[in-house]
Amino acid sequence: MKLVRLGDVGAERAGVLVDDDTFVDLSDLVGDFDEAFFGSGKLASLDTVVAQRLSAGKTEPVAGRRFGAPFARPHQILCIGLNYTDHAAESGMKVPDEPILFTKSPNTLIGPNDAVQIPRGSVTTDWEIELGIVIGKRSSYLPNEAEAQAAIAGYVLVNDVSEREWQLERAGQWSKGKSAPTFNPAGPYLVTPDEVGDVMNLDMSLDVDGVRRQTGNTSTMVFGPAFLVHYLSQFLVLEPGDLINTGTPPGVGLGMTPPTYLVGGEVMTLSISKLGTQTQRVLADDSKAK
Amino acid sequence: MKLVRLGDVGAERAGVLVDDDTFVDLSDLVGDFDEAFFGSGKLASLDTVVAQRLSAGKTEPVAGRRFGAPFARPHQILCIGLNYTDHAAESGMKVPDEPILFTKSPNTLIGPNDAVQIPRGSVTTDWEIELGIVIGKRSSYLPNEAEAQAAIAGYVLVNDVSEREWQLERAGQWSKGKSAPTFNPAGPYLVTPDEVGDVMNLDMSLDVDGVRRQTGNTSTMVFGPAFLVHYLSQFLVLEPGDLINTGTPPGVGLGMTPPTYLVGGEVMTLSISKLGTQTQRVLADDSKAK
Repeated sequence: MKLVRLGDVGAERAGVLVDDDTFVDLSDLVGDFDEAFFGSGKLASLDTVVAQRLSAGKTEPVAGRRFGAPFARPHQILCIGLNYTDHAAESGMKVPDEPILFTKSPNTLIGPNDAVQIPRGSVTTDWEIELGIVIGKRSSYLPNEAEAQAAIAGYVLVNDVSEREWQLERAGQWSKGKSAPTFNPAGPYLVTPDEVGDVMNLDMSLDVDGVRRQTGNTSTMVFGPAFLVHYLSQFLVLEPGDLINTGTPPGVGLGMTPPTYLVGGEVMTLSISKLGTQTQRVLADDSKAK
Repeated sequence: MKLVRLGDVGAERAGVLVDDDTFVDLSDLVGDFDEAFFGSGKLASLDTVVAQRLSAGKTEPVAGRRFGAPFARPHQILCIGLNYTDHAAESGMKVPDEPILFTKSPNTLIGPNDAVQIPRGSVTTDWEIELGIVIGKRSSYLPNEAEAQAAIAGYVLVNDVSEREWQLERAGQWSKGKSAPTFNPAGPYLVTPDEVGDVMNLDMSLDVDGVRRQTGNTSTMVFGPAFLVHYLSQFLVLEPGDLINTGTPPGVGLGMTPPTYLVGGEVMTLSISKLGTQTQRVLADDSKAK
């Protein structure tokens, strides 16, 4: 099942995608795809409702509607650093012994095709294609990876946009370079695990202006989704609807020779197999235009 | 004005404290002291409503009610590291050139007198008394410190409970040791800036089992509240109701010789002038009892 939220910013309606052109609106039934929804357990029975509405002909066209992020602003966005062996190498850092955790402000979440705004004063804004995990139930001290897997509502394509100088050279902690407005495009859809199949074998690619910059496959992840959810639940409580960005494969601007960053005007195109494609225009630092 | 939320966990009612024994319930009017409330601007006119209810005799006793955190779970909890010159010294770290930002999971927020739970496997759980700032309006790229000051809804006493090994020795970023359940007691009240007066001259103290461990005054902060709010708004968007923990003065367990941590059974007592007193029992790691 592919969950979507379609409509203008702040007025997205929750539904399920039937095919590329058609969706079933469920907003009257579920409200929004938010913490309350994921915590309610309703996701498990959504296919029955969708089937009923499909047979009753209650479908709507996708055309002309904006894709929002396929889940509402979460309680928290957790991120894992250096989680691909080859990305760690290009960053000049060693593969960590255990997951590196940092965070993004939840209000960075935007739709998959919304514009990414280079923040004021930034000269090192970079891209990072990632597999995102959305949590399906409140999770604390999960006893094993099987229960962690059962706590995953689904997977989503995300761009963990990053300001490298702010992340790495501005007094220590990474969150400072990860939380600017528009820095977390997500979508187009949240895909349930049954439909993703083997999450450890998904192709990933990111192009900037049609030039391939990142190529990867989730098979080279250091710590997989079930490991990460189990691990994180030992340190903090995961709430339903929380997002975990699981790290990026090689090919970020920081790793190029010389390092190459976004300046505005570019188009980023990201794809992960089973999880769809997203496209963002990059807007230049608006303080420079003044 | 002192905002309070009184009642059982999850059923707190928002109100204003009239004196130590009495409050005016405003939950019918404001709902909760949450993002929507702070964003509504209603805080500015609350004194009128309180005066009306006071003159109508609509007050209730505080006795017998639990103090919750004086604001609902925020969109984000931001924390500033090493923001007191003398605390940086005891930690063996240099005073930073600019604020160090890290985060806590928002669901760490608890009432001022709720128990603090030592997380499973922890042997280095530590205390940190801090001045907390609660944001009063959505803030992005604030132009100066005057506007930052105007964006502050009030101040609150917090305990930035910390797991030192997880913070400092478990793969890099501090958030991992700051986000365990119950790690952010806050309250008893949120005090509006007019009633706090000079926020850069507040005495702070923290006792463990009646022994003074932390003594400080906000006058030795490196970066004050208006500076911090202005600064943070250049990197991310502050939402109404967001909490900023502004750093701790000297006297944490990490800085003792030898380092001394909580084991369970202790009572922590924290006070900041104008912001009240909080007391937490410490509960031992519950996995050890099994």
